Amino acid sequence: MKIPHFAPIPAGLPATVPFIGPETLQRQRGRPFAARLGANENGFGPSPKAVEAMCGAVAGIWQYGDSTSHDLLEALSVHLDMPAANIVIGEGIDGLLGLLVRLMIAPGDAVVTSDGAYPTFNYHVAGFGGVLHKVPYRDDREDIGALAARAHQVDARLVYLSNPDNPMGSWHDGTAIEAMLDELPQGALLLLDEAYVEFAPAEAVPRIAADDPRVIRMRTFSKAYGMAGARIGYAMGHPELIAGFERIRNHFGVNRIAQAGALAALLDRDWLVHVQREVAAARDRISLIAVENGMSALPSTTNFVAVDTGQDGRFARALVDRLEEDGVFIRMPGVAPLNRCIRVSCAPAAELEILAEALPKVLAEMRRAEA
Amino acid sequence: MKIPHFAPIPAGLPATVPFIGPETLQRQRGRPFAARLGANENGFGPSPKAVEAMCGAVAGIWQYGDSTSHDLLEALSVHLDMPAANIVIGEGIDGLLGLLVRLMIAPGDAVVTSDGAYPTFNYHVAGFGGVLHKVPYRDDREDIGALAARAHQVDARLVYLSNPDNPMGSWHDGTAIEAMLDELPQGALLLLDEAYVEFAPAEAVPRIAADDPRVIRMRTFSKAYGMAGARIGYAMGHPELIAGFERIRNHFGVNRIAQAGALAALLDRDWLVHVQREVAAARDRISLIAVENGMSALPSTTNFVAVDTGQDGRFARALVDRLEEDGVFIRMPGVAPLNRCIRVSCAPAAELEILAEALPKVLAEMRRAEA
Repeated sequence: MKIPHFAPIPAGLPATVPFIGPETLQRQRGRPFAARLGANENGFGPSPKAVEAMCGAVAGIWQYGDSTSHDLLEALSVHLDMPAANIVIGEGIDGLLGLLVRLMIAPGDAVVTSDGAYPTFNYHVAGFGGVLHKVPYRDDREDIGALAARAHQVDARLVYLSNPDNPMGSWHDGTAIEAMLDELPQGALLLLDEAYVEFAPAEAVPRIAADDPRVIRMRTFSKAYGMAGARIGYAMGHPELIAGFERIRNHFGVNRIAQAGALAALLDRDWLVHVQREVAAARDRISLIAVENGMSALPSTTNFVAVDTGQDGRFARALVDRLEEDGVFIRMPGVAPLNRCIRVSCAPAAELEILAEALPKVLAEMRRAEA
Repeated sequence: MKIPHFAPIPAGLPATVPFIGPETLQRQRGRPFAARLGANENGFGPSPKAVEAMCGAVAGIWQYGDSTSHDLLEALSVHLDMPAANIVIGEGIDGLLGLLVRLMIAPGDAVVTSDGAYPTFNYHVAGFGGVLHKVPYRDDREDIGALAARAHQVDARLVYLSNPDNPMGSWHDGTAIEAMLDELPQGALLLLDEAYVEFAPAEAVPRIAADDPRVIRMRTFSKAYGMAGARIGYAMGHPELIAGFERIRNHFGVNRIAQAGALAALLDRDWLVHVQREVAAARDRISLIAVENGMSALPSTTNFVAVDTGQDGRFARALVDRLEEDGVFIRMPGVAPLNRCIRVSCAPAAELEILAEALPKVLAEMRRAEA
């Protein structure tokens, strides 16, 4: 007997995963990584106050979470200086991306993104039958003009832009993004992924009215707030757009401990400043390690650094694989010419030193193997 | 300017929520509940070992969870005596229900359930454009024969059955469910929701081969394991069906603390036995409270009791509302004739005593108001 057939859209999808997680890689290699520098996690960790709040919430985990994440929503409303009706809290940006694509994209609808940008967004677009159109990066940044032009060509319903950008760590001035909104076709929505915004300079943050109907912005507690495993983030937009999530979201889907932790993390401004400083220092250290090894770091306003190997994607792939064998988990961009780079997450000094020790050794081995 | 329009299916959906959460109700009434007995949560709480594991996992929350929930999956494989390929872990049954509906249901596809059964399942079916067909309960149980017959009539792709049942607490013998599989139309999938199975007698659990392609079973850590707020559960079925989830699930969507807690909870058999005993005692206490107030408890093999008020849905609704005013949160079935009942979750004795005190007072007031 066969299983009942899948619906047409999932029937046409491959079984895939946007990223292979470090735990999976560790099991494949049979031992843990010495340095976990691949997933843009924040090894400086969450605020001690968030840790305390999460531990305090554990005994109450027998209760479902508040379906509206009310207390966190109110705190975000104050923090962002916009009404709560402009904000929806969800299971991280990954979860919110899936909901937004489902809300906006019917099978065959056009979506524009950059070739090499966030794979999980592409996964969701394919998952709902959307048609992806990709424009190349330009000078290692997402190309705002090309994105808008392609959106017109294909009559896009959704345009993805991350600022600061992953995987390159680059950014645009906020004014450029504000101007982009006027360049989009009527009926298109800009999805502005601001996962790394807390690491960015003020001028990288566009000034967009809370009720602007042309854009939705997404932010997360996974990066600067150090809570990637908690699965909690939020989206900001026009109240009618935000209300759309109530039609399809899993109302009791946010973990109760995550709600408590995110609230405490948001309120601990000192810890955020501490993390920002540590991340800036780690970026400098990674840049130095790059230079010491004959490579160069790209400027970054995120908690990772794209390091230009000066060679091609084949070389970078081999380097990532060899470092993995040596216990150093990093990742790299997926397409040329970005894939001449490796991507290293900011982390405490001890972990970066493991990279600093492994890298020259691995590079020397690769040179010897080549010779 | 208007917001870009939604895709056709969400455009046709209402903004709705399957349940109004107790926190929302508390905010509406301006003060907390004295007794939280409405959401079938498990107030006896998670295993102390699970609490310890979750607290221990908090500091590591800066890391994404393992995308395969590997350790929990392996433990479940042993616990359930089936290969890991037959199991998928997800963000609670609510999350898995949404994924299953998305995997199986194209717009217009027929789905069969019972009128009064789990609203969140209906929410997901509507959310993906499925067409719900409902058959009535029979003698306060889901009507297996009617479900199968309707499935033939409408050529159903998916048939929902919960065993034990929510909201009535009733159950069928496992053999009846085994027989039902032979009665379903070719190409239909039985979705067997076993959220309360750990409270049920052995004979209520059907013996179904792990690879049977006609059924998917869902279980959760929300009920007997006391971790509703953690959002973690699992589905069991044919490996090809289970592999289908890899096409659409949010691979890094399960909270890392929940993974650690669920593993510890699963391994603590003593605590589960303790909870089962406490829940059985609480069921007896709720039955006694019912009788003392001129009402009768329906037999239950869950962690809640449906109490027959002996009156109609209007009366039961008024009773639920009045108890809510008095600080006692309970719920009730949504349709006649089930809605002659109120539904009370099992809880520690102190909370049930609050109900025991409030109930006669509220009933007397209602009688006086009627007179």
